[in-house]
Amino acid sequence: MVTKNVEDCFPFKDQPSVTWINIDGLHKVDIIEKIGEHFDLHPLVLEDILNISQRPKTEDFENYIYTVLKMFTYNKQENETNIEQVSIVIGSNFVISFQEKEGDIFDPVRDRIRFNKGHIRKMKSDYLAYSLIDTVVDNYFIVLEEIGEQIESVEDELSKNPDPEPETLQTIHGLKRDVLFLRKSIWPLREVINTLNRNESRLIYKTTQLFLKDVYDHVIQTIETLDTYREMLTSMLDLYLSSINNRMNEVMKVLTIIATVFIPLTFIAGIYGMNFEYMPELYWKWSYPILWMIMVSASLFMFAYFKKKKWL
Amino acid sequence: MVTKNVEDCFPFKDQPSVTWINIDGLHKVDIIEKIGEHFDLHPLVLEDILNISQRPKTEDFENYIYTVLKMFTYNKQENETNIEQVSIVIGSNFVISFQEKEGDIFDPVRDRIRFNKGHIRKMKSDYLAYSLIDTVVDNYFIVLEEIGEQIESVEDELSKNPDPEPETLQTIHGLKRDVLFLRKSIWPLREVINTLNRNESRLIYKTTQLFLKDVYDHVIQTIETLDTYREMLTSMLDLYLSSINNRMNEVMKVLTIIATVFIPLTFIAGIYGMNFEYMPELYWKWSYPILWMIMVSASLFMFAYFKKKKWL
Amino acid sequence: MVTKNVEDCFPFKDQPSVTWINIDGLHKVDIIEKIGEHFDLHPLVLEDILNISQRPKTEDFENYIYTVLKMFTYNKQENETNIEQVSIVIGSNFVISFQEKEGDIFDPVRDRIRFNKGHIRKMKSDYLAYSLIDTVVDNYFIVLEEIGEQIESVEDELSKNPDPEPETLQTIHGLKRDVLFLRKSIWPLREVINTLNRNESRLIYKTTQLFLKDVYDHVIQTIETLDTYREMLTSMLDLYLSSINNRMNEVMKVLTIIATVFIPLTFIAGIYGMNFEYMPELYWKWSYPILWMIMVSASLFMFAYFKKKKWL
Amino acid sequence: MVTKNVEDCFPFKDQPSVTWINIDGLHKVDIIEKIGEHFDLHPLVLEDILNISQRPKTEDFENYIYTVLKMFTYNKQENETNIEQVSIVIGSNFVISFQEKEGDIFDPVRDRIRFNKGHIRKMKSDYLAYSLIDTVVDNYFIVLEEIGEQIESVEDELSKNPDPEPETLQTIHGLKRDVLFLRKSIWPLREVINTLNRNESRLIYKTTQLFLKDVYDHVIQTIETLDTYREMLTSMLDLYLSSINNRMNEVMKVLTIIATVFIPLTFIAGIYGMNFEYMPELYWKWSYPILWMIMVSASLFMFAYFKKKKWL
Amino acid sequence: MVTKNVEDCFPFKDQPSVTWINIDGLHKVDIIEKIGEHFDLHPLVLEDILNISQRPKTEDFENYIYTVLKMFTYNKQENETNIEQVSIVIGSNFVISFQEKEGDIFDPVRDRIRFNKGHIRKMKSDYLAYSLIDTVVDNYFIVLEEIGEQIESVEDELSKNPDPEPETLQTIHGLKRDVLFLRKSIWPLREVINTLNRNESRLIYKTTQLFLKDVYDHVIQTIETLDTYREMLTSMLDLYLSSINNRMNEVMKVLTIIATVFIPLTFIAGIYGMNFEYMPELYWKWSYPILWMIMVSASLFMFAYFKKKKWL
Repeated sequence: MVTKNVEDCFPFKDQPSVTWINIDGLHKVDIIEKIGEHFDLHPLVLEDILNISQRPKTEDFENYIYTVLKMFTYNKQENETNIEQVSIVIGSNFVISFQEKEGDIFDPVRDRIRFNKGHIRKMKSDYLAYSLIDTVVDNYFIVLEEIGEQIESVEDELSKNPDPEPETLQTIHGLKRDVLFLRKSIWPLREVINTLNRNESRLIYKTTQLFLKDVYDHVIQTIETLDTYREMLTSMLDLYLSSINNRMNEVMKVLTIIATVFIPLTFIAGIYGMNFEYMPELYWKWSYPILWMIMVSASLFMFAYFKKKKWL
Repeated sequence: MVTKNVEDCFPFKDQPSVTWINIDGLHKVDIIEKIGEHFDLHPLVLEDILNISQRPKTEDFENYIYTVLKMFTYNKQENETNIEQVSIVIGSNFVISFQEKEGDIFDPVRDRIRFNKGHIRKMKSDYLAYSLIDTVVDNYFIVLEEIGEQIESVEDELSKNPDPEPETLQTIHGLKRDVLFLRKSIWPLREVINTLNRNESRLIYKTTQLFLKDVYDHVIQTIETLDTYREMLTSMLDLYLSSINNRMNEVMKVLTIIATVFIPLTFIAGIYGMNFEYMPELYWKWSYPILWMIMVSASLFMFAYFKKKKWL
Repeated sequence: MVTKNVEDCFPFKDQPSVTWINIDGLHKVDIIEKIGEHFDLHPLVLEDILNISQRPKTEDFENYIYTVLKMFTYNKQENETNIEQVSIVIGSNFVISFQEKEGDIFDPVRDRIRFNKGHIRKMKSDYLAYSLIDTVVDNYFIVLEEIGEQIESVEDELSKNPDPEPETLQTIHGLKRDVLFLRKSIWPLREVINTLNRNESRLIYKTTQLFLKDVYDHVIQTIETLDTYREMLTSMLDLYLSSINNRMNEVMKVLTIIATVFIPLTFIAGIYGMNFEYMPELYWKWSYPILWMIMVSASLFMFAYFKKKKWL
Repeated sequence: MVTKNVEDCFPFKDQPSVTWINIDGLHKVDIIEKIGEHFDLHPLVLEDILNISQRPKTEDFENYIYTVLKMFTYNKQENETNIEQVSIVIGSNFVISFQEKEGDIFDPVRDRIRFNKGHIRKMKSDYLAYSLIDTVVDNYFIVLEEIGEQIESVEDELSKNPDPEPETLQTIHGLKRDVLFLRKSIWPLREVINTLNRNESRLIYKTTQLFLKDVYDHVIQTIETLDTYREMLTSMLDLYLSSINNRMNEVMKVLTIIATVFIPLTFIAGIYGMNFEYMPELYWKWSYPILWMIMVSASLFMFAYFKKKKWL
Repeated sequence: MVTKNVEDCFPFKDQPSVTWINIDGLHKVDIIEKIGEHFDLHPLVLEDILNISQRPKTEDFENYIYTVLKMFTYNKQENETNIEQVSIVIGSNFVISFQEKEGDIFDPVRDRIRFNKGHIRKMKSDYLAYSLIDTVVDNYFIVLEEIGEQIESVEDELSKNPDPEPETLQTIHGLKRDVLFLRKSIWPLREVINTLNRNESRLIYKTTQLFLKDVYDHVIQTIETLDTYREMLTSMLDLYLSSINNRMNEVMKVLTIIATVFIPLTFIAGIYGMNFEYMPELYWKWSYPILWMIMVSASLFMFAYFKKKKWL
C-alpha cells in the first residue's frame, strides 16, 4: 500500500501481523516526527534518522532496535555511485525503513512479499529487517564488481602500454579514494550485524540469526575485497611510477647516445672550420677522406660500446 | 552568574541542585587551589589541571570523576586551529570545568540551561558533563570539515593541473601534520568515554549512558575520518610525486626530440663548414640543394620515429 | 563406485559405515538439489554450494557441518594456477564433497581408502573430511613453492643484472597480485579450521582434532609464507626502482661528462671559425698548435675533476 | 648516607623504616653479589642486573619485586643522549636501585626525602620505587622535547628552502633511527607498569597504584608522541624527496628551454657557415638581416610556447 | 655417552634419573623410528621430526611434550648463517633432541652436566629441555649481532659516501631478506614458549617456569630487535634512493650550467662564422674584441644567476 497520509499506517501498530512502513525522503520531517511519536521512538533516534552523515550502528531500545546503514547503488548510465543512508527500526510486529531518496532498491523484497516467495511471509519482523539489510549488502557487490572491472581495465592498460597516459594516474587515484570511502562506510557494518546477532534482544529470533550470519560473511567478504583492491591500487601506482621512470630512462638513453656520438664529431668538424692561416692539415690532399674514416670508425666504436652496455 | 570571587561558589556545594562552575584561564592558580581545597580534589588532579600537555584521560575518585579533553576550535578569520585543554570534574551535585583561555564555546550549553531547553535542567550533573563533552566533540567536526575542504581543494588542483605548484607539496605536508596531531589528541578520547560509560561509578546514571554512547560514536567517526584523511593525503603525495615525474618525463622528451633532430644536422653543417682545400662536394653544383633534401628527409624520418614511439 | 545416477547413493545414508559422495561439477544443479533434499540440507547451504564466489567458512547445523574451501592447483604444463571451490558436508556417517570441475586431486585419498592405508578406513566421517581438507591444504604448498621459485628467479635477475628489463616489473606486479589473491582466499581458513576444532559438535572426535591442529599449523605456515613473499616482493619493487634510478644516474653522468668536455671546446673552435677581418690570432704562426694544447689540457683537467668527483 | 662499605647497609634490612640503597656502577660485581646474598635475591635477578642489554620487565618474587628500566638522559653540552639501565628491587621495607654509571638523576628524589617534601617520608617502599620510576619517565620527556625541537627545525628548513641540503637527509635519517631506538626501549615499559599495578603482590599498596597509573599515562603519551614523530619523519623524508624531484624538474626545464631555443638557431648558423660554392643565399643583399629576423621571431615563438606550457 | 647403537639408550627409559638422548642427523630414519616405537611417540610426531620445513610449535601428548625450533648458527669463517631444525621430546624422565646435522651447539649444556655446574644435575627433565631451548635462543643473539654489525657498516657507508655504490643496494636488500626470514622463523617461538609455560602439563615444574619466562623475554627481545632492524633497513633504502636522487640532481645541475653558458655563446660564434657576403659587422675593426667582451659579461651574468639560484 502506497500512502501519502502517514496516519494511515498507525492502526497497523497493534495488529499481530508484521507491518513494513517505508519512508522515502528525509525532507518530510513532520511525517517522521509523527511516526516517532506514534511508535514511541527515542528523540536521539529521530535525530539520527534525519542526520545523513551518521556512522552505521545499531542500538537496542528494549521495545525496538534501531539500525543505520549506508546504501550504495551504482548507476550504470551516468557511471556514478550514489550513496544513501538507510535507517531501519525493528519492532516486535513492525519494521520502519527510512530512505534518503525515493528508489526501487527494495523492490525485490516487495516482490517476495507480494508473490509470497521464500520464507518472508511466514516469518517475523526480524526476518523482514534481515531481508532489507541483505538487499543493501547485496548492492555492495554490484558496486565492488564495477570497481573491480575498472581496476582490471587500468591494470590491462598498464601491462600493455609501457608509456601509460597521465590520465591513468588520475583514474588510479580516483579509484583509491572510492575504495577508501567505501571501506570507511562499510567497516562499521561488521559491528552492526555482530551486535544484532549477539543481541539478547527478544526481537531477533534464532532462525533469523543464521541468515544474519550469512550477511555478516558477505560484509566481511566485501571488506576483504576492498582491502585487496586497496593493496592492488597501491601496487598499481608503484607500477605506474616505475613505468614512468623506465620510460624516462629510455628517453635519457636515446638523448645520451645521440649526444655522445655527435657532440665530439661536431667538435672535430668545428676544429677544421677554424680560419687560422697556419693549419697544415687543411692543405693535405687526403685530410678530408681520412677525417671521414676517423669519424665513421669513432661512431662505430661508440655504438659497439653502447651495445656492450646494453643501452641499445 | 559570573563572579570574580571564587568563594561565591562554595555555598552551592551542599545544595541539592546541580551547580556548574566554569573557570576560564589556568593562570589563576590560587583560585584553582581554593576550589581544589573546598571540593576536596586529589593533589594529582590539581597538578593535571594545571599541566596543559596532559593526555586525554578519565579517572574515578569515588566522590568525583576527573576528565581531561583536548578542545579544537577553528578560527575562520585567522584561518588557524586553536587547541585548548578542558578539564571537567564531575561531582554528585556539581560540575567544575576548567578552560585554558576565555572562550564562548560552552555558550550553547549556557543557552540551553538559561532557556530551559532540552533535558538539561531536569537531569543530574552527569548530563551536564555530557553536554560539555558533546560540545567539545561537536567542535571536532567543524575542524574536520575545514580540513576536508582543504584536502578537496588540493585534490582539485592536483587533478586539474598536470604541473602542480611546489607550494601544493607544503600544503599537503602541513595538512598531514595537522591530521597526525589531531589524531594523537583525539585517539585517547575513545578510552575516556568508554571508561565513563563502563564505569560502575554511582555518578553516571543509566539515562546518560545512552547519550555518552552517542558521543562515543562521534569520536569513532572522527578518528575514522582522520584515518581516511591520512590515507588520502598519502595517496595525494604519491599523486603529486607522480605528476612531477610525469612532467619531467614530458620535459625530457622535448629536450631529447630537439637534440636528436638538430645535433646530427648541425654536425653535417659543421662538416661542410670545414676549410679543407680538397673537399670535392664543395664545388659540385647541386650539393647545397641535395644536402637540404637529405636534412629535411632525415628530420621527417626522425619525427615519424618519435611518433611511432609515442613521444609526440 | 562411480555413478551417473545420484539416487544410487541414497541407500548409503542409513548405513553404519562412512559413505563418501564426491560431486564433480556444479552445473549439475538437479543432482545437487536431490542430494540436498535427501540429506536434509538447509536451503542456504545449497545456495552457498552453487555460488562459487563464496568466502571460506564453516557452519554447524546440528546434524551436519558445512565447510567451504578454496582449492588451488598448479598446472605445470600451462604454467597457470587454477582456483576451484570445494564444499564439504560432514554428517555422522557420510561426507559429501562438491568440486567445481572434474579433477583428480582427491586421488591420494581414494588410494588410501582403496588400499586400506593409514587410519582412514578405521575412522569416522570426520577423519575422512580431515583427509580431504588436508589434501586441499597440501596443494597450497605446491602453489607456494611455484611462486617461491619465480620470486627467486626474479631476485636472481635483479641481483645479477644492474639494468633490469621492463618485463621484470610486470612479473613482480603479477606475482604480487597472485600473492594478494591467494592470501585473501586462504586467510579465512584459519577461522574455518579453528571453528571445526573448537567445535563442541558431536561430529568431530577428539582423535581427529589432533590432525586438524596439524592442518591448522599448515594453514598458518602458508599465510606467514605469503606475508613474507609479499614483503619480499615489495622490497624487490623498491630494488627494481632503485636499480632504474641507479642506471639513469649512470646514463646522466656519461651525458654530462661528454657535454661538459666537448661543449666548451666546440665553442672555442666556433670562435676561430668566425669570419671577422680583424682577428689577430688567426695570423699568428703558433695559434693552431697552442690552441690544441689548451684544448687537450682543458679536457685532461676536466677528466681529473670528474675522477675526483667519482663520476668515472 | 654515602658509603663505600656495602656491609654498612645490611643492618637496615630488618628495621621497620624504609631503606633506599642506591648502587652506582655495575662494575662493582662483588658488592652486588654481597647485596644479592644478604637480601636473598634469585640468581637470575643478579644476572639480569649485570647484563645491561636487558629488555625492560618486571618480575614478582613473593618477597620482592624486580624491575628493569632504560633511563635516557640528554646531555645538552655534548648534544647527545645517554642510555643507562636502571634495576630496582622493591622489598617490603627496602628499595635497592642499581645504576650503570654514577649520576645525579635521582637527586630530586633525594631532596624530597631530605627536606621532607611531599608524601615521600610518610609512605612505604612502593612509593619510593614509584618516585624513582617517575623520575626516569620524566627524563623521557626531556629527550622527547629535544627530538621534537630538532624535528621542528628540520621541518622549518624544508618548508623555507626549496632546495634542501643533502645533510638534511642525514639528519632526518638519524632522527628516525633515534626514534626507533627510543620506542624499542620504552615500549615494554607499558607492560612493566601495568604488571606492577595489576599485581596482587602485597608490596604495592592501593594508594601508590593511583600514582603508578599516572606514570603509565606518561609512558603511553611518550610512546604515542614517538609514533607521531616517526610518522612525521617519514612524511618529511617524502617531502625532502619531492623537493629534490621538484628541483630537478626546475633544472631540467632550464636546460630544455636553453637547448630548445639555441640548438636549432645554431644549426641555422651552421648552414650558412658551410663553404659550398653554389649557395645563392650567401650573395643576396638582405640575407643576413632577414636571417636575424627569422631567428628572433623563432625564439620569441619558442618562449611564447614555453609560457603557454607554464615552463617559465 | 656416545653410541652408534640406538638400543643402548633404551634401558634408561625406566630409570628414575633424567636421560638425555641427542640424535645428530635426520637421515638415520630407522634409528628415529626405533626410538619413536620404544618411547611410544605419536606417528604425527615422527613425521614432524623428519619434515625439516616445520613451523616452530609445541604439542602436549599427555606422556610427553613435543617441541620444534629453528636453530641459527653463524659461521664466521664462511660468513654465512646456517639454519637447522631442532626437535625436542620432553618426557617425565627423559629428553630426546633431534638435530639436522652434527654440531657442537649443545656443548655448553654437556659441559654443565659433566662438570656438575649450575642447577642442571639437581633438576628434572623440564630444566634440561629449558637448557637446550635457552642455548638455541642464545644463538639467535649471535646472529642478530652479526646482522646488526652489517647494518651499521652499511649505514656508515651511506652517511659518509654521498654517492653510494650500487652494491650497497644489493646488501641492503639481502639483509632485509635475511631479517624477514629470521623473523618468520622466530615469530612462532613466542607461542611455543608461552604454551609450554601456560601448560597445565605435569611435566613442567613451577621452578622451571621462571626460567622459561626468561627465555620468553629473550625471544620477545629478538623479535623486537628484528622489527627495528627491518624498519632501519627500510629507512636506509629510502636514504639510498634519496642519495641517488640527490646525486642525479647534482649531475643535472653541472650539465645545465655548462649547457646554459656555452650553447648561447656557441650560437653567437656560429653567427659570425656564416659566409654571407653582406655582413657589416665582419669588417668593423672592433667587432672581435667587443664580441669577446659581450661573451665574457654574458657568462659572468649567467654565473651570478646560478649563484643566486644556489646551483653553485
